[in-house]
Amino acid sequence: MERKRIAIVGVGLIGGSLAIQLHEKKISSRLIGVDANADHAQQAIDLELVDEVMNLGDAIAASDVIVLAIPVDKVVAILPPIMDKIEMQVVIDLGSTKSQSIECIKNHPKRGRFVATHPMWGTEYSGPGAAVRGAFENKAVIICNPEESDADALMWVKGMYKKIGMHLLEMEAKAHDLHAAYVSHISHITSFALANTVLQKEKEDNAIFELASAGFESTVRLAKSNPAMWVPIFMQNKENVLDVLKEHIAQLTRFKESIEKEDNEYLMRLIEEANKIRRIIK
Amino acid sequence: MERKRIAIVGVGLIGGSLAIQLHEKKISSRLIGVDANADHAQQAIDLELVDEVMNLGDAIAASDVIVLAIPVDKVVAILPPIMDKIEMQVVIDLGSTKSQSIECIKNHPKRGRFVATHPMWGTEYSGPGAAVRGAFENKAVIICNPEESDADALMWVKGMYKKIGMHLLEMEAKAHDLHAAYVSHISHITSFALANTVLQKEKEDNAIFELASAGFESTVRLAKSNPAMWVPIFMQNKENVLDVLKEHIAQLTRFKESIEKEDNEYLMRLIEEANKIRRIIK
Repeated sequence: MERKRIAIVGVGLIGGSLAIQLHEKKISSRLIGVDANADHAQQAIDLELVDEVMNLGDAIAASDVIVLAIPVDKVVAILPPIMDKIEMQVVIDLGSTKSQSIECIKNHPKRGRFVATHPMWGTEYSGPGAAVRGAFENKAVIICNPEESDADALMWVKGMYKKIGMHLLEMEAKAHDLHAAYVSHISHITSFALANTVLQKEKEDNAIFELASAGFESTVRLAKSNPAMWVPIFMQNKENVLDVLKEHIAQLTRFKESIEKEDNEYLMRLIEEANKIRRIIK
Repeated sequence: MERKRIAIVGVGLIGGSLAIQLHEKKISSRLIGVDANADHAQQAIDLELVDEVMNLGDAIAASDVIVLAIPVDKVVAILPPIMDKIEMQVVIDLGSTKSQSIECIKNHPKRGRFVATHPMWGTEYSGPGAAVRGAFENKAVIICNPEESDADALMWVKGMYKKIGMHLLEMEAKAHDLHAAYVSHISHITSFALANTVLQKEKEDNAIFELASAGFESTVRLAKSNPAMWVPIFMQNKENVLDVLKEHIAQLTRFKESIEKEDNEYLMRLIEEANKIRRIIK
């Protein structure tokens, strides 16, 4: 695999972690950082995540590959003008929703240079300082609507993800967004709402957290996640997120009713049903 | 600390893990297992969690300390007859709710021999095979209504918990049950309900879990927990659990409404509010 000049637009948790991998796996010959936040751009240099920082226009001209690791509303805003400026470069986005980024350049003459992807990795932290070594390894990456990308662009992107240790799945954007609502987006909403539930109580009882245990930490950890990333995800995936959120509220209401009625048998059945998640997560 | 003959009633996850610690920290001179489930009793012997197995009556007669590590409905059922049979033995329960176990022997002439505790440690697994080495270390243990226990019994129990590496908190049973609803019981309900939400969807789309990621696993992990343990906890702590569950459904409804109305600013505020959980969990 010939080493490429790669621009990372958005050198935060995801872009920064990818930059480390691209360098270590010798995929990049040069790493160019682009970030609307000047402090983040400077941190990316200081942390040696990238070799240099440029503005977007210069970075496009100086790169073979342009990676978008920015919130999904920003992807939709800058992807069309980027596609206007490229020649034969490959453009990749890493966002958690895929329908709208694909839709916004659907009929662009350079559509084939774009590859829509979603590497299934992240943490609840954000910014260049949150970037970690060894990220993405042994995780899944979804490539959406691969038939709409040029064969060479697709091949290069697949090779890159394999080289950083990811296993590839292909999926239509609509199916991706539905699945993502169920296995990622709803987990974040329940975690945010759980945090707000207990923080609300804390106002009247500031000793409430003295006994916070591992179970609590596990379910509420995602509530530390960055709103600038998550608000656009929920809005772009509105229909799917609302479907799963309504179902989740309905499920919680069953627990509420079984407890209200002291219906032990029904509550037992609800929990036994939930135990079947053992099939999915070991 | 003089070594004692200790009976563990319920040699599952909690009782088995405690048995390992009591042996390793040289707190016990002999460990006697009691379990209504004959297979579990045999496993406890096979796994060398206890030295021998007896029926409850014989175990009481042969022990200095009796530890109850059984579901909270079973505690309330067998604690009064145990208190009728003891002489100067110390009786400890480890359940996740405290008001009802204390209430059921409130006026018992031997009340002072009983110490109500809740060590804040557990996993989503159950049975003797789930017992682990090093459990409880660096976690909190709550001692409830300590003034109702005899000084010598209380001192011994505190010494035991310190020796296995726990830090002690004292709390009235009512306050304990309120706090536990917020920092433990609700986490389990949201996790059970989240599992049911996605398992429901899986019926129509069996590829839904292909992209389950770390965030999903984190929030749904507790859904593997044992219903025989959790149904009685939710029922005994009904009022507190319903209060927090209603608040949680209200919080989720705010997320739903902000997304329905595409009110980005309100959704942003909800998430920023949730981010304050960083003060509590690092």
